Amino acid sequence: MATGFIKTPSPFHFIQRTSYTHLGAPITVSIAGSSKAKKTHLQLRVSMGLIEPDGGRLVELLVEEPLRGLKKKEALSLPAIQLTSIDIQWVHVLSEGWASPLTGFMRESEFLQTLHFNSLRLPDGSVANMSVPIVLAIDDAQKHRIGDSTSVALIDAKNNNPIAILKDIEIYKHPKEERISRTWGTTAPGLPYVDRAITNVGNWLIGGDLEVIEPIKYHDGLDRFRQSPAELREEFTRRNADAVFAFQLRNPVHNGHALLMTDTRRRLLDMGYKNPILLLHPLGGYTKADDVPLSWRMKQHEKVLEDGILDPETTVVSIFPSPMHYAGPTEVQWHAKARINAGANFYIVGRDPAGMGHPTEKRDLYDAEHGKKVLSMAPGLERLNILPFRVAAYDKTQGKMAFFDPSRAQDFLFISGTKMRGLAKNKESPPEGFMCPGGWKVLVEYYESLVPASSNGRLPEPEPVLA
Amino acid sequence: MATGFIKTPSPFHFIQRTSYTHLGAPITVSIAGSSKAKKTHLQLRVSMGLIEPDGGRLVELLVEEPLRGLKKKEALSLPAIQLTSIDIQWVHVLSEGWASPLTGFMRESEFLQTLHFNSLRLPDGSVANMSVPIVLAIDDAQKHRIGDSTSVALIDAKNNNPIAILKDIEIYKHPKEERISRTWGTTAPGLPYVDRAITNVGNWLIGGDLEVIEPIKYHDGLDRFRQSPAELREEFTRRNADAVFAFQLRNPVHNGHALLMTDTRRRLLDMGYKNPILLLHPLGGYTKADDVPLSWRMKQHEKVLEDGILDPETTVVSIFPSPMHYAGPTEVQWHAKARINAGANFYIVGRDPAGMGHPTEKRDLYDAEHGKKVLSMAPGLERLNILPFRVAAYDKTQGKMAFFDPSRAQDFLFISGTKMRGLAKNKESPPEGFMCPGGWKVLVEYYESLVPASSNGRLPEPEPVLA
Repeated sequence: MATGFIKTPSPFHFIQRTSYTHLGAPITVSIAGSSKAKKTHLQLRVSMGLIEPDGGRLVELLVEEPLRGLKKKEALSLPAIQLTSIDIQWVHVLSEGWASPLTGFMRESEFLQTLHFNSLRLPDGSVANMSVPIVLAIDDAQKHRIGDSTSVALIDAKNNNPIAILKDIEIYKHPKEERISRTWGTTAPGLPYVDRAITNVGNWLIGGDLEVIEPIKYHDGLDRFRQSPAELREEFTRRNADAVFAFQLRNPVHNGHALLMTDTRRRLLDMGYKNPILLLHPLGGYTKADDVPLSWRMKQHEKVLEDGILDPETTVVSIFPSPMHYAGPTEVQWHAKARINAGANFYIVGRDPAGMGHPTEKRDLYDAEHGKKVLSMAPGLERLNILPFRVAAYDKTQGKMAFFDPSRAQDFLFISGTKMRGLAKNKESPPEGFMCPGGWKVLVEYYESLVPASSNGRLPEPEPVLA
Repeated sequence: MATGFIKTPSPFHFIQRTSYTHLGAPITVSIAGSSKAKKTHLQLRVSMGLIEPDGGRLVELLVEEPLRGLKKKEALSLPAIQLTSIDIQWVHVLSEGWASPLTGFMRESEFLQTLHFNSLRLPDGSVANMSVPIVLAIDDAQKHRIGDSTSVALIDAKNNNPIAILKDIEIYKHPKEERISRTWGTTAPGLPYVDRAITNVGNWLIGGDLEVIEPIKYHDGLDRFRQSPAELREEFTRRNADAVFAFQLRNPVHNGHALLMTDTRRRLLDMGYKNPILLLHPLGGYTKADDVPLSWRMKQHEKVLEDGILDPETTVVSIFPSPMHYAGPTEVQWHAKARINAGANFYIVGRDPAGMGHPTEKRDLYDAEHGKKVLSMAPGLERLNILPFRVAAYDKTQGKMAFFDPSRAQDFLFISGTKMRGLAKNKESPPEGFMCPGGWKVLVEYYESLVPASSNGRLPEPEPVLA
C-alpha cells in the first residue's frame, strides 16, 4: 500500500469471475490430516477443510531430522554457491511451500512461464499462478566451478554454513533486461529490488530441486511469528476457521485498517460463515530503505492487539518471509497465491498493491486500479475470493477512522503514509482515533532510534542466520 | 526468422505438452458448414473438420452488404477517430476474425490480460491465447471530442472515408512504458513498431465492438492473395485437407525453406495423414525498413511455385494482414494463434521467430530458443501442434540445401539473410541450388529498383485504401 489510508468494502463486493468461486458456500472444517512423507526428505501435508494448496498439496522441502547430518556431509562434498540474505529468504519461502508446487529455484521453463504467463502449467493440465521469478543467479566463475556436477550446495555467505542442496540442476542464461521489463513493466533505474538483487548478480540462473537441511531461522526474537503454511493451516484448523481472510501489509496498522478488517469479518459472518479468521500477515523479507523495518512493525502490531483494536481470538499475526519486489500488479498475484498455500480463501486488496512511486518520473509506477483488476483475472487464482476495498479516512465529525462518504467529503481527512511518517518523526500526534496510542508510541520510538548519521536513516534489516 | 538459413525437423519431433495434442490422430474432413449469421452484422462461420477457431467460432465483424449504406450514414453522424495505416491493418485483422474471439479493439480488461498473461479468459472459463495488444490510441483532443458518445466512427486519415464504427466504447489510459516493457521485454529506443506506432500516438486507448463497413482492400494487385480465415478454411475444405501446416514468413523463400516444407509434408504423410496442405503465409502488414517489401516477396514466392520448388497442388499462398511487432517470443504466439483461426493445426517454428537485433546492444534481442519454448508452453495453444525445426544449410558436397549434419560441418555453408541481401544487392549469384533462379532474379530486381537517393533505400509500403 502506497499510502496510510485504506480502502474499504462498502458495499462489500466480490470482483466478478467467469469461473466458480466459494461465494456463500461456507467450507466444512474437519480434522487436519496427518503428515505424510512421499520421500524421506519431502514432507507433504494437506489440512482437510481449508482451501487446497496450489497443485493439490503443500510442497515442503525440509530434510527430515534424522537425515540432516548426512545431508550436511553431502553438501560439504559438492560445489558451493554462496547465498545472499535475499537468496536465503527465497530458500525459506521455497522450503515451507509458500510457492507450491515449486520444488526449488526455477528452471528455465518455469522462469519463462512466469515471465510470459504469470502462471505454470502443471503435469495434470491445470494451472497454478506464479508471477515473480524465484531464481538463483550465479556468475561465470561459479558456473565454471560447478562443471559437470548435477548437484550443488547452497552456502550462507556470512558464515559458510551449508543451507541446502540443489539437485538435478539446470543452468541457463539470466536475461536481466527482459526479466526486469516483464516483471516491473519498466527498466527505469532505481527499482529497489533490481538494484539490490539483480543488477550486480551473475549472468546465469541455476534451477533445480531443493533439499533444505535445517529450518531457516533469523534469531531476531521474531522467529515465533514465522509460522509456515503448514503451521498456519494447523492453527486455522485448531481454531475451527470456516473462512480465512488474509491481509498483506508492510506498514504500521492504523484504525482504518482495523475498521476494514473488523468490517470484513462482520460481513463474512453475515454471509453465513461461523468463524472467519483474519491472517494479519506482515511481509518479513527485504523491504526498501524508507519502509518501517519489520521489528518495529511487529512491535506496533502487537500493541494494536494489546489495545484491543483487533480481537486476538479471531486474528492470527504471522510473518510472511518473502522479500518485496514492489512490482505492483505482477507482485500482488504472488502475495495472494502464497496465502492460498497458507490456507486463506479470501484476500483483501486495496489501492495500488505492492506499488511505489516511479523511480524516475513524478507519478506512481502503476495505475492504482490495475493491481486489483489484474488480480481478479489472474490465471490460477480463480478459487481465491478477492475482496477489493474502498477508501477509509479520518472522519472529523466522529473523531475516528470511517468509510469515506463522498457526499460529505469535507468531513474527511486523508492521512498519507508520508504524512504519518512525518508526524511520527517530529514526535507530533495524529488526530485522536487515527491509531491506538500504544501503536503510535512505537512509531515515534522507531524514528527516535534512527541514528542521524546513518546514510539512509534506517537500521540494518534482520538477516537470516543458522543456529 | 532472423537469418536466411533455416531449421529443419530432423528428427521430426513435437515439443512435448502436458495437455492433449492431435498427435497421430488424423482429422476427419467433412463438408464445410454453411455460413450462419448471429446478428445481421456479425457473421459466424465454422468449417467442420478443421481445427476450431479460438472461442469455438470465427468472429467476423463485417457489416452485411445490405446494411452498409445505413452504417456509413450512421458513421458520418458520430465523433470521428482518424486511423493510421497500421490502425487500418488491425481493423483488417479484427474484421476477418484472425484475433477471434476478440470483437474489436481491446478494452482495458483484455489489454491487461494480454500484457500480464498473454491470454484471455473466456466467459465459459476456457482460455484463448492473445499475446500482443490490439489497441487503438487516441489523444486528449480526440477524447474530448468523443465526450459522452458511446460510439465513434473510425475514419481513414488519408481520404476521410468511414471504415468502421466502434460501439460500447471504453476509454482508458495508455501506459506506454508498461505496454512496451511487457510486450518486448525491453524499453531500448529503436524498436521499429514502437517508433512507428506507439511513441507518438495518444495517451489514451479506446476499446469497443467493431462493425466494419466494407472489406479492407489495398488495390496493390495483391488483394486476391489476402484470403480471410473463412476463405482459407473453405479452401482447405475444398482441397480435402486433413492436416494444415502453417509457415509464417517475412523473407524470400530459398530452397532450405522448401526442403523443410516438403519434408514436413512427407512426415505428416508418414504419420497417417492423407492430404496435408501447406499454408505458406507471408506477413503483409507493417514491416521494418530493411525487410524486403511484400510486393517483391510475393513475386518471389510466385516464382518459387512456378519453378516447381513447392507443389501448387498442396500449397496455399496467402497474405497474413497483421503488422509486425518484432516482439520475439511474445509475438510468435500471435502468429501461431491467428493461424489456428485460419484452420491450421500444425505450426512450424524456427530459430528466433519474430526476432531482431537488439536496438542498442550488439546482440540479438531474444534468446534464439526462447520463441519455440514459450510457444510450446503458451496458454490457449495446447491444441496446436508445434513443429520446431533444426538447421538446414548449403551442402557443398551435394550442391544443394540440406539438413545440417554436425558430423561433417565443414561441408556446409550458412548463408545468412544479411549475406543473401548483400549478394542480391551486388547482383552476384548465390551458390547454385540455394534458391531457384526465377526467385533470385526477383530479388536482384528489387535491389536494382531501389532509388539510391531514398533515405532508407526502400520503396513505400502498400497502404490499405478504400475503393
